[in-house]
Amino acid sequence: MLRFECDYAEGAHPQIMERLMATNFEQTPGYGVDTHCEHARALVRDFCAAPDAQVHLMVGGTPCNLTLIAAALRPHQGALAAQTGHIAVHESGAIEATGHKVLTVPSDDGKITAAQVDAYCADHFAQGNREHTVQPKLVYISQPTENGTVYKKDELVALRAACDKWGLFLYVDGARLSYALASEGNDVTAADLGALCDAFYIGGTKVGALFGEAMVINHPALQEDFRYILKQHGGMLAKGRLLGVQFETLLENGLYTDIGVHAVGLALRIRDAFAVKGYTFRYASPTNQQFPILPYAAIEKLKEQFSFEFWEKYDETSAVVRFCTSWATKSEDVDKLITAIENL
Amino acid sequence: MLRFECDYAEGAHPQIMERLMATNFEQTPGYGVDTHCEHARALVRDFCAAPDAQVHLMVGGTPCNLTLIAAALRPHQGALAAQTGHIAVHESGAIEATGHKVLTVPSDDGKITAAQVDAYCADHFAQGNREHTVQPKLVYISQPTENGTVYKKDELVALRAACDKWGLFLYVDGARLSYALASEGNDVTAADLGALCDAFYIGGTKVGALFGEAMVINHPALQEDFRYILKQHGGMLAKGRLLGVQFETLLENGLYTDIGVHAVGLALRIRDAFAVKGYTFRYASPTNQQFPILPYAAIEKLKEQFSFEFWEKYDETSAVVRFCTSWATKSEDVDKLITAIENL
Amino acid sequence: MLRFECDYAEGAHPQIMERLMATNFEQTPGYGVDTHCEHARALVRDFCAAPDAQVHLMVGGTPCNLTLIAAALRPHQGALAAQTGHIAVHESGAIEATGHKVLTVPSDDGKITAAQVDAYCADHFAQGNREHTVQPKLVYISQPTENGTVYKKDELVALRAACDKWGLFLYVDGARLSYALASEGNDVTAADLGALCDAFYIGGTKVGALFGEAMVINHPALQEDFRYILKQHGGMLAKGRLLGVQFETLLENGLYTDIGVHAVGLALRIRDAFAVKGYTFRYASPTNQQFPILPYAAIEKLKEQFSFEFWEKYDETSAVVRFCTSWATKSEDVDKLITAIENL
Amino acid sequence: MLRFECDYAEGAHPQIMERLMATNFEQTPGYGVDTHCEHARALVRDFCAAPDAQVHLMVGGTPCNLTLIAAALRPHQGALAAQTGHIAVHESGAIEATGHKVLTVPSDDGKITAAQVDAYCADHFAQGNREHTVQPKLVYISQPTENGTVYKKDELVALRAACDKWGLFLYVDGARLSYALASEGNDVTAADLGALCDAFYIGGTKVGALFGEAMVINHPALQEDFRYILKQHGGMLAKGRLLGVQFETLLENGLYTDIGVHAVGLALRIRDAFAVKGYTFRYASPTNQQFPILPYAAIEKLKEQFSFEFWEKYDETSAVVRFCTSWATKSEDVDKLITAIENL
Repeated sequence: MLRFECDYAEGAHPQIMERLMATNFEQTPGYGVDTHCEHARALVRDFCAAPDAQVHLMVGGTPCNLTLIAAALRPHQGALAAQTGHIAVHESGAIEATGHKVLTVPSDDGKITAAQVDAYCADHFAQGNREHTVQPKLVYISQPTENGTVYKKDELVALRAACDKWGLFLYVDGARLSYALASEGNDVTAADLGALCDAFYIGGTKVGALFGEAMVINHPALQEDFRYILKQHGGMLAKGRLLGVQFETLLENGLYTDIGVHAVGLALRIRDAFAVKGYTFRYASPTNQQFPILPYAAIEKLKEQFSFEFWEKYDETSAVVRFCTSWATKSEDVDKLITAIENL
Repeated sequence: MLRFECDYAEGAHPQIMERLMATNFEQTPGYGVDTHCEHARALVRDFCAAPDAQVHLMVGGTPCNLTLIAAALRPHQGALAAQTGHIAVHESGAIEATGHKVLTVPSDDGKITAAQVDAYCADHFAQGNREHTVQPKLVYISQPTENGTVYKKDELVALRAACDKWGLFLYVDGARLSYALASEGNDVTAADLGALCDAFYIGGTKVGALFGEAMVINHPALQEDFRYILKQHGGMLAKGRLLGVQFETLLENGLYTDIGVHAVGLALRIRDAFAVKGYTFRYASPTNQQFPILPYAAIEKLKEQFSFEFWEKYDETSAVVRFCTSWATKSEDVDKLITAIENL
Repeated sequence: MLRFECDYAEGAHPQIMERLMATNFEQTPGYGVDTHCEHARALVRDFCAAPDAQVHLMVGGTPCNLTLIAAALRPHQGALAAQTGHIAVHESGAIEATGHKVLTVPSDDGKITAAQVDAYCADHFAQGNREHTVQPKLVYISQPTENGTVYKKDELVALRAACDKWGLFLYVDGARLSYALASEGNDVTAADLGALCDAFYIGGTKVGALFGEAMVINHPALQEDFRYILKQHGGMLAKGRLLGVQFETLLENGLYTDIGVHAVGLALRIRDAFAVKGYTFRYASPTNQQFPILPYAAIEKLKEQFSFEFWEKYDETSAVVRFCTSWATKSEDVDKLITAIENL
Repeated sequence: MLRFECDYAEGAHPQIMERLMATNFEQTPGYGVDTHCEHARALVRDFCAAPDAQVHLMVGGTPCNLTLIAAALRPHQGALAAQTGHIAVHESGAIEATGHKVLTVPSDDGKITAAQVDAYCADHFAQGNREHTVQPKLVYISQPTENGTVYKKDELVALRAACDKWGLFLYVDGARLSYALASEGNDVTAADLGALCDAFYIGGTKVGALFGEAMVINHPALQEDFRYILKQHGGMLAKGRLLGVQFETLLENGLYTDIGVHAVGLALRIRDAFAVKGYTFRYASPTNQQFPILPYAAIEKLKEQFSFEFWEKYDETSAVVRFCTSWATKSEDVDKLITAIENL
């Protein structure tokens, strides 16, 4: 069985495992104040051209989202997200558990627009009795989104402007950021995120690390005392240097970028194979996740050799499925998948 | 500089690193439902002779405490702990962040007694207006405590009885459990914890793992839906198998036990060297942490060669310091420390 | 200016003020354990034919909703409501502030159906990874809804069945319950609520009291320790007897029922006057709130003499407005309004 | 039975009841934006000489404390209080339910000192790993305290200085403020509170109102969006004007002051009667609460005619009891009590 289910099915990229082995007996202080973490933080700041940013190395995506949002909001404030946003649907109410409502706007492709943010805020702040409703204070987006789609630079610039207009923070969930940076037609660099966001995180778990995400915080109000809130939510790893070593490896020699290029290249080959056969797609994804709409018979046929994810029913005869590639996907396995697609 | 500061200064025990390397390219489902996790959970249940227990493999100690306590309590209930308990002082208000008060009782050695629990509950439930105060519902203890001290079996049995009398859960933080099991004079087995506790966790981070703790839940009310609450607090690791592999390694062939024996043996040699020189101790610790009271001059002298932790001022001329051993401590380094102690 | 804006524009019904005056110098214990509260609780139990119910006299509607829901849910559970439900939009995130997500389903008239509850739960519990999403555990409805609409008995019976099927609590917000009981075509009695709901509250604030709501709790799990949670959320009034005296007055001789009959009768006269002139309504309300769709010119004309609430824009030329009646609305003022409608 | 148990045993001062009757049929907008509330807020600002203060009229003391503290603190911050402080022991964990720890310091008389605040903060901010502990950010005191004791002006000035030194808010719970203002030897005016505190509340419930407290907020950071947080915690009364009318009555013609003078005068007569008989007191209270230490026989004797509160056991033969006076206490009843004391 060849697996295309997700981008976290294996352990870590071999370079990361080597480095963890090489450093295993070093003695370091705990909780992220060792030299590996210092070095990794410097590399992260360079990577996104944000020399004044605060960087926190964290264990996972949900901890990033809930800790950042808890740090950013006063009790009556909420985070504005697409109705399909990860914080809105797939974190078991993690944001609400910190006391905050996730305010949602409709989205068909996982993205939200500056116009939606502007309209939401205009409505809220125009109300005479606005204190009876939750105040929007932070915009949450993902780059790429859970649907594999990607914001263009002008869209981010417009979101930034809408946030500035209404005094909102802009926060980007970059769980799969490498795959957006390598996406077809991408015009958003890591430096753009460094310049446009109040905070964002650079995902490692889905990009070759055992685990780990690098939270980048630009806004001083979010920087203040962040480590307390990290500790409070259980996010301060005792052996913090494990995160430092991993991000050193990912960022020192371009591995983070290379992984994205590798995985996206393979994903687009899969996409093209489906397209050539005339299949259409639920989302126009230029990244490592592809969402073809397939007849149930084709799905059954492919399942004989390959594992992939059922996404949602499309109609009586067909469904949306997801194929994922990653740092670990082999070109020859993609060849086999493409042959199978051609034979459908 | 030889380090005796803490028990989490290095990476992981070599057997664990080997196993992570050996399994690195296996493809597994995420979130802890893979075969390594299944196997590890079975080993944990065997280890504490609790065949009906639910086992959750988690990333760290604070996440264990806050998630279990959040799962256990209704809004008006609190956790009863020693005033020195980790949840009372060193988790940045993690329990309060889930809405619950940590109720404290005095303790000089890190332990609390069944009589204290009984008296606290008797006071609370005797009040006419008891609904104006927080209701005790869970007893939190550590084995060993943060002060290196250890509960004896009769003390645990008495705590269990007090909890049963008043309808409280008994929860044990076992961050350093291996060192209690190997402690001088210990009469509490893992099976005793399995029989006496509603929940407890077997600490891996401080016992040779890169990270990881095994939460054992006996009480059905705490078992129900625990995975939701784990996810909600950001504690569900995407590559859950990393935890499975580590606990397989720790428990399959007695490594978890061996590490405790190794570290405690070395710690008691350090203890004895201080005692022979006439120094006394802040706590009577039979475990891997030792807390001698030393003159400032002796401290300065030892600091030339060794790192260890300043614990607290004792009086004008002396202070309490902490020496820790671990799986990674070398016998020859302990020899050097003992020589230095003898030369004080 | 004659006011039809809301049903809480005046103080209290004269009978209530008289009783408060008459009892003002009585000395009673605080916090709701006095004889007036005891008597009021007995009257409430009689009113809804629920002899085993627990009754708590509370200050307002938002406190009722947040306290009951906080008492009912474990951390990972949410309350299912119409997207227009009061807890979903008009309580400033009060439910989220207790840690819980409000899960919403679409509704055009403020009501939700048993089929919606069933489908939502079927979806949730069918998911393999359901612990990544919030678990529905309580259904929140209002009788009447914020849109003036009313559940029929068969709809409530079906909701009860759906809740039983999936293990959910059924909770009814009865802020304006009197107006539902008196509504045109109503077939749901207070006793029906007593039989079908796990909890509901009988609203006083909008039905002639200075303030106050009577929370009726049938389900033993919600009854347990409710007073602690009431106190914790600041809902335990020191001079609790004020609530007791008010509910004694409302329930002793049918005043609560009479107020509903009075207000609904007047509201339906207003409704009919609009209908006769050919206006249509945003919601089919048989209660004390009416939502005609009026041309802007008609709105401007009516505003010269009457105050009423702008509800929402309908189209370029017309808007939805709300007219409310209450215990304090005078028949002669309604006559004047009807004359003005006829003259539009 | 003559009652000296508490200061909230009756309804409201007759002037308040009259005013509520007189205004009962006025139609006003809801939620505290009516002219009575506006007027009351102006009177409050005058009363404490704080023309720029924001004033919010609230229902009770626990709502005041939890709402203000929730508004003031970020997630990792706590409120520093005496271990006997109301928020520390008698609010069922209301502060913790908003996510914050109550940090306590020892106190024998209910007061805390500037030196304690300074030492606590010096310890906290000196720690290298301070993010592992809760950060003190607000000092909570009561004037008078629950023990009837009163801060002198120099003590408040010193607390203000300590708060300024460490960046803490100073918040005063004035549930019984009138009785402090009228206390024997008092040198703290309402204007002093207006000048020295970041926020405080002027208690009405225990000073002649049916219910109600006036929250005065000086610090701009606490003022911002306070009404949202008020609504979120269920504290926004629909018929807000009830609070406005009551505070108008209390403050317009000195009634608030007169009530304090009346009650304290009577309490000191009771105190002196006990003192003359040679009894001592648990606390040196110059206010409306008196805490004599009485032999059990004397307690039994007095209980035949009078009700008062058992406070705590003192020793095998005697106990501390509490006698309270209020706006409603009659001079002739105090005469009877004094006679009984003399006859002990």
